Amino acid sequence: MIPKVSVYLAVSADYYIAREDHSLDWLEHDPKGQDYGYNRFAKSVDLIVMGRKTFEKVLGFETWPYEGRTVIVLSRSLTKSDLAPVIARRVELLNMEPAEVLCYAEALGCTHIYLDGGITIQGFLAQGLVNEMILTVFPLLLGKGIPLFGPMDKEVALEVLDLKGYDSGLYQVHYRVK
Amino acid sequence: MIPKVSVYLAVSADYYIAREDHSLDWLEHDPKGQDYGYNRFAKSVDLIVMGRKTFEKVLGFETWPYEGRTVIVLSRSLTKSDLAPVIARRVELLNMEPAEVLCYAEALGCTHIYLDGGITIQGFLAQGLVNEMILTVFPLLLGKGIPLFGPMDKEVALEVLDLKGYDSGLYQVHYRVK
Repeated sequence: MIPKVSVYLAVSADYYIAREDHSLDWLEHDPKGQDYGYNRFAKSVDLIVMGRKTFEKVLGFETWPYEGRTVIVLSRSLTKSDLAPVIARRVELLNMEPAEVLCYAEALGCTHIYLDGGITIQGFLAQGLVNEMILTVFPLLLGKGIPLFGPMDKEVALEVLDLKGYDSGLYQVHYRVK
Repeated sequence: MIPKVSVYLAVSADYYIAREDHSLDWLEHDPKGQDYGYNRFAKSVDLIVMGRKTFEKVLGFETWPYEGRTVIVLSRSLTKSDLAPVIARRVELLNMEPAEVLCYAEALGCTHIYLDGGITIQGFLAQGLVNEMILTVFPLLLGKGIPLFGPMDKEVALEVLDLKGYDSGLYQVHYRVK
């Protein structure tokens, strides 16, 4: 069975996923510990697929957030020898197109892919290979940054499965890609 | 009193307000006649301010939608002599910066401005001169078009005043600009 492909992202109100320098400092944690459904979502995922830039960002986090999970990093240039051994053990580096990634994931027996990174998401969307997008929107116009959506040659119809406002001032829209 | 400045727009899910050729054919009317609060909003408005490109788009509509209302068209180049007399009577052409438009509107005794057009909205937002944005989101990624938001050198904090889903599949987010 072809794995389900999900996007779960925090975005600014003008749909940037990070500042130009990839920083996420504008994403404040909810003092009430609200996780916006992330943990439930993350538990359902058995494969994480991200682009190289997102990977490099995650490497700067205090702890590796995907312990015990299969992580694929898509890159045209990066090889294992570029990585410290402790990092290299945590990920698979693949130079693949979106459809090839899905075949590969299916062969691994994966059922639910968590897709991360602007360029990676845009590539899968353009190929019609994203099944759902859960966007948690921060009420802030960043004005510039790394955009969630990029130019596409075709339209993609969506369906709003769920729409939630939070006391923290954020809201979340859950799209199914038709 | 400085007039309140509102944006009321239909946008695609990737925040385009029109196709690259300015067409709006992707905006389907709701078969149930749902107006998404437009009429109530429009009644509260006593001045419409739009950019030249939006004006040219509106000229192509079957009927002039702002009959009986003051309409300001912002343009650096257009003059009344460029317009047919029947059109010229309907609008004021001004070559003004956002803050000047507000002073002018205040002098006219206007209290509530309906701001339209991507570049116009971006200009007012960048100057901190928009008070609210009501965005009705169509569940469709257009992939390209005229963007609602443009690059800005500063951030703009928003507050979600209201969030509504509609049976038609659209949703609406009402932001107050802080």
